[in-house]
Amino acid sequence: MTTEQLVTQIQKKKSFLCIGLDVDIHKMPQHLLTEEDPIFAFNKAIIDATHHLCVAYKPNTAFYEAYGLKGWKALEKTINYLNETYPEIFTIADAKRGDIGNTSSMYAKAFFKDLAFDSVTVAPYMGKDSVEPFLAFKDKHTIMLALTSNEGAFDFQTKKVEGKELYKQVLETSKRWKNAENLMYVVGATKAEYFAEIRKIIPDSFLLVPGVGAQGGNLQEVCKYGMNKHVGLLVNSSRGIIYASNQENFAEASAGKAKDLQQQMEVILNN
Amino acid sequence: MTTEQLVTQIQKKKSFLCIGLDVDIHKMPQHLLTEEDPIFAFNKAIIDATHHLCVAYKPNTAFYEAYGLKGWKALEKTINYLNETYPEIFTIADAKRGDIGNTSSMYAKAFFKDLAFDSVTVAPYMGKDSVEPFLAFKDKHTIMLALTSNEGAFDFQTKKVEGKELYKQVLETSKRWKNAENLMYVVGATKAEYFAEIRKIIPDSFLLVPGVGAQGGNLQEVCKYGMNKHVGLLVNSSRGIIYASNQENFAEASAGKAKDLQQQMEVILNN
Repeated sequence: MTTEQLVTQIQKKKSFLCIGLDVDIHKMPQHLLTEEDPIFAFNKAIIDATHHLCVAYKPNTAFYEAYGLKGWKALEKTINYLNETYPEIFTIADAKRGDIGNTSSMYAKAFFKDLAFDSVTVAPYMGKDSVEPFLAFKDKHTIMLALTSNEGAFDFQTKKVEGKELYKQVLETSKRWKNAENLMYVVGATKAEYFAEIRKIIPDSFLLVPGVGAQGGNLQEVCKYGMNKHVGLLVNSSRGIIYASNQENFAEASAGKAKDLQQQMEVILNN
Repeated sequence: MTTEQLVTQIQKKKSFLCIGLDVDIHKMPQHLLTEEDPIFAFNKAIIDATHHLCVAYKPNTAFYEAYGLKGWKALEKTINYLNETYPEIFTIADAKRGDIGNTSSMYAKAFFKDLAFDSVTVAPYMGKDSVEPFLAFKDKHTIMLALTSNEGAFDFQTKKVEGKELYKQVLETSKRWKNAENLMYVVGATKAEYFAEIRKIIPDSFLLVPGVGAQGGNLQEVCKYGMNKHVGLLVNSSRGIIYASNQENFAEASAGKAKDLQQQMEVILNN
């Protein structure tokens, strides 16, 4: 999917919501456990109930790997279902991968070709040759960690590197990499005051923003400082939406939570 | 496995060799492609031929994920075979994972409990709460990236953070984390001149050292500056060993390459 197609979807749906499909068998409605593939059954119900309210879905691979082969199969079924049924949706494999060049190529193949995600999240620590194999894929997007939503972000990311915070060095350095137009960045909603500074460095890039909802980030603040003329934001909510209820009506309850966020986004987009 | 058991194995086998099981279907002996599970067949043959010459095996997860469900199944069979047949071997899931706390817990469960690896590699960028869920597992080891063997290591890792290179900040900061005694570190062999400085910060920790062989690192240099009184090194070779031949005798050829390295290690250990 091209960035233009993503922007068109945002304008059409009046939403820049991304829903995180972080499926935990202990938290999902227990009546689904009798299904042949409970994880996929849960995802399918959530997707069918919310696809008109969001523009992206983001399964975090950790939650699938934790269930071994069954989990990997559920991930495969989920991305296939999304690509077949809702091809207009932007898909993100939240995998935070990164390795030396020839190894990163294997990860890029896994997520872009075999699983056919539109994008994958990557970690910056190993530098240019660990990320460029992902960037080489046309119309695929590499979403690099810049400033994350967790407490540990202050351990290294905000430390001054040659006079400038590490996350800023990551943004500035990566702008010079080959096919940098395929880069997006992760910036946590819990750090809304940083968005203005970030926009000075990367005015045009899309930002994937986790941390709204369960982690305490504020949507209005994020938009005030982070939005650009093409919107440029994908705001993610996972637990706050998918675990809205664990009763029979869980999918409707999720849609209710998604609609709350979508309507807040519509107000922001109309202003 | 405890660190003491690992040290005992090193002394017994006169080897601190780790063999990287980075299986690429295009590079493996093509006669194996008729096997039901070519990746596992290849690994099993390599392991059976080399287990007495090394103390650890390190499958890099990228090479398994690239083959989807089949790959994940081969990884599961490989770790099960190692744990059942050669329980004295130290096993490393080279996964370079890291995420916010509750998500890292899922990765830790996947690699330490379900797949039952002795250790897993992790990335430091997201800080303390992204790594501590791994450290919480008793007699399991978390191997954190410090200074990697690739060119991109110079993009961020060697940059000065508050007067000290980022990789040194990573070493010093992580020493204060809960259960830090379960930490080991990745330090690339291509940067042998850095080992003396690193040993000043973490004199006792085990280092996993990739980059000997195909990537150009020198074993003698690494040992001169990196070895401590408990050896404290696991030196990895992947391509140089497992692709020694693609003929019928590939496993013997691999054993020959492994023996070359083991004998160099024996000389070093006897000095």
